[in-house]
Amino acid sequence: MKTYQPITPEIIDKLKAITGPSYVKTDRDILLQYQTDYETNPAMFRVPEAAVLPANAEEISQIVKLANEYDFPITVRGGGTSLAAGAIPVCGGLVLSMERLNKIIELNEEGMYMTVEAGVRTIDMQNEAKKVGLLYAGDPSSAESCLIGGNLATNAGGLRAVRYGVTRDQVYSLEIVTPTGDIVECGRILKKCSTGYDLEQLIIGSEGTLGIITKVTVKLIPLPPYRIDVLAIYTDPKKALYMVPKLLKAGVDPTSVEYMDNSYVRDTADYCQYSDMPHYEDGIYVIITVETFREDELDAKMDTVCTICEESGAVEVLEADDRIWNMRRNVQTSCEMISKVFLTDDVVVPVHKIASTIEKIMEIGENYPFQVKINAHIGDGNLHIVLCKMDMSDGEWNKNVEEFHQQVYAYAYSVGGRLAGEHGIGAKKLKYMEQFTPQGELKVMKTIKRAMDPNLILNPGKVIDA
Amino acid sequence: MKTYQPITPEIIDKLKAITGPSYVKTDRDILLQYQTDYETNPAMFRVPEAAVLPANAEEISQIVKLANEYDFPITVRGGGTSLAAGAIPVCGGLVLSMERLNKIIELNEEGMYMTVEAGVRTIDMQNEAKKVGLLYAGDPSSAESCLIGGNLATNAGGLRAVRYGVTRDQVYSLEIVTPTGDIVECGRILKKCSTGYDLEQLIIGSEGTLGIITKVTVKLIPLPPYRIDVLAIYTDPKKALYMVPKLLKAGVDPTSVEYMDNSYVRDTADYCQYSDMPHYEDGIYVIITVETFREDELDAKMDTVCTICEESGAVEVLEADDRIWNMRRNVQTSCEMISKVFLTDDVVVPVHKIASTIEKIMEIGENYPFQVKINAHIGDGNLHIVLCKMDMSDGEWNKNVEEFHQQVYAYAYSVGGRLAGEHGIGAKKLKYMEQFTPQGELKVMKTIKRAMDPNLILNPGKVIDA
Repeated sequence: MKTYQPITPEIIDKLKAITGPSYVKTDRDILLQYQTDYETNPAMFRVPEAAVLPANAEEISQIVKLANEYDFPITVRGGGTSLAAGAIPVCGGLVLSMERLNKIIELNEEGMYMTVEAGVRTIDMQNEAKKVGLLYAGDPSSAESCLIGGNLATNAGGLRAVRYGVTRDQVYSLEIVTPTGDIVECGRILKKCSTGYDLEQLIIGSEGTLGIITKVTVKLIPLPPYRIDVLAIYTDPKKALYMVPKLLKAGVDPTSVEYMDNSYVRDTADYCQYSDMPHYEDGIYVIITVETFREDELDAKMDTVCTICEESGAVEVLEADDRIWNMRRNVQTSCEMISKVFLTDDVVVPVHKIASTIEKIMEIGENYPFQVKINAHIGDGNLHIVLCKMDMSDGEWNKNVEEFHQQVYAYAYSVGGRLAGEHGIGAKKLKYMEQFTPQGELKVMKTIKRAMDPNLILNPGKVIDA
Repeated sequence: MKTYQPITPEIIDKLKAITGPSYVKTDRDILLQYQTDYETNPAMFRVPEAAVLPANAEEISQIVKLANEYDFPITVRGGGTSLAAGAIPVCGGLVLSMERLNKIIELNEEGMYMTVEAGVRTIDMQNEAKKVGLLYAGDPSSAESCLIGGNLATNAGGLRAVRYGVTRDQVYSLEIVTPTGDIVECGRILKKCSTGYDLEQLIIGSEGTLGIITKVTVKLIPLPPYRIDVLAIYTDPKKALYMVPKLLKAGVDPTSVEYMDNSYVRDTADYCQYSDMPHYEDGIYVIITVETFREDELDAKMDTVCTICEESGAVEVLEADDRIWNMRRNVQTSCEMISKVFLTDDVVVPVHKIASTIEKIMEIGENYPFQVKINAHIGDGNLHIVLCKMDMSDGEWNKNVEEFHQQVYAYAYSVGGRLAGEHGIGAKKLKYMEQFTPQGELKVMKTIKRAMDPNLILNPGKVIDA
């Protein structure tokens, strides 16, 4: 990896001239806030040399040009909710926080779109759309904390992707500051476009390595007024998993299909202090959400869903209440009860391979001393494996995790899967990216990175080793 | 534009060694077949120096490496249905025809995907999916002639994009031969992915300038069993156009919303020899298709559609029969009756700007001596303007067309539109692309092109002047 120049007092002065002195941080106490994101392992932390809080794209453009001139790296920080060490400044240098770019610029009801600065919280966009009867369909689990720019940078997925797709599918256009400091708008508010290269889709999911996203225009769609959440409880994971393809072909167009294994059912019920959850001891929960524009359509689709679940071997099929979603939303935090250090992984496979993949992972896990827990967006083939360190030594933990990952990733790739469905590669999976990505594909990615960012200024040490 | 080396007998011998001698064409009679696509203006034609019909990606890889070694350009040809001179070898050199890569490799019902070679006809994919109760939703008007690789290269749109999106939205993955001859698979059969750069979306819509698409895996979705086509007839174009936003917000999720101005109603009825079409003299036709999974849902949505059309001022609302779609599918051919040379243009604007755009175009057209005809996919803001040369002189025609385009494109860009919604830029709009694209955006496109294709081998003279 490249070695950069240190951030000197001269550079600090120039940064202060760009943003005003109060928006450039050099105090160690403050910089400690930027040493990690959702990463819990202190071995991964790194304190930046400075942090800057610009107000707009013009300031960011000047900062990026300065970085090219003085050869220091920039790590962009959104909400700091990365589970892939995406916001950690692994090469030192400058952290650039997007928190001040927090304005909703326009909500256009007639045109059904919303334009925001990249530092707006996802939940604020969801709420703003809801006020006028529209839906912003992007919905990562971290919606209350994450920022829309980060959603785009990682192509965040989340809970509604079965019906509405991922963040990539919600975006009309975006403004970036390129790695050399130009301000460029990519895309327009168009439903069809065949006018040159699709730069917006290239930027989305590039995790800040090809440009700093400063402004975003997203699609809004009519908000379906009717909704039902079904909880199908299984005691045999195979039966739960093999139900999915039938559900997806039945024309009910579910919004969410979520899976929590029994360890999660117990842990999240305990965490939420719900004492009477059905099949607490042996249940696997599958939550299915359906939304419609008419009540009779909802009834009909609910009947179809219930029939499919019953016929596939569910031991109980209920209407799910708020508690179920609360449990689902707390899968991550419930792990903190069990283990101070735990590792959340994110793998994606073709939907029709998820059953065999989960079986395989549990089988691999049996050879290791840690607890393996699985929750999954089974409607889109995306699963999260949590490993709990408990009281294992650092050495034992690292060795076991590495071995376990090698086997899981090798299996995922063998069935056409990939390293990350929604968390991104960040710094955490860079070495696996280099190992598992076919050489030709990696070569094209590096060719593009080097051409667009010749000095490797933006987010070095992430995604690929350019 | 770059000057290339001629294709010598030595190169011909090497090509023959790659594909077998019968698949390398040098006879002028045969080469004349490759001098144009759907372009009707002989001034745009160009005969290639040779044509090659490879059998697979491996052969294409060798041909591309040869082109880099000997410095001759390659123009890829799919079905030859481009309306943007996309398949014309404007810099001479070699035409590479995809016609032999015509195998459907796999249709996977459980996984709901289909993998095909890039030279398979779109209609064959549609039919193959239908046989097992699934839908391939891509549907360009030229589906009977065009090849799937060309659909991807231009990000073809078509008639069903309101509900299902454009070609870009149908694709899981693709295989390309890169401009330097590597065979690379981009994307996988995944509903979520956050694992490096989205190369497949960069390639889609790049019109063969960043890689030769050799294999494609598309999504299949459940085929809705119920369908209705409504014909709403208006006599005031404004009323027809201002109906669209209401329809899109009503939750009926229409598959198609098509617009034919009165000149098209007359010409296509004449062409199809339908003598009793309603409002032949003064009608503007809007065709609305709705598809559902249940019959009662269809009835309910049909009621909603009819109410919206009537309330917005339709003079008649009918169930559309096959004749209407036949007329719609013959808008292009019906022009041949009127004028030997005619020009089909393709512009896209935000959906909520289409009404004002069509008004503006008709207003601009009044100052010119040619007939201006408009049909439009009004549900997605994409409109086709046809200009008929009739008996105008070449000089007068060229001058008028150029003036007309300058005004239309300037207006489209002023409302956030773009040069092409679905036909692509090809050679025909390259100069407008250079003129109208913001400099920063053009710079990024050229940076990527030059990095991926350093010798400018693939499809030179198309999209951008790299």
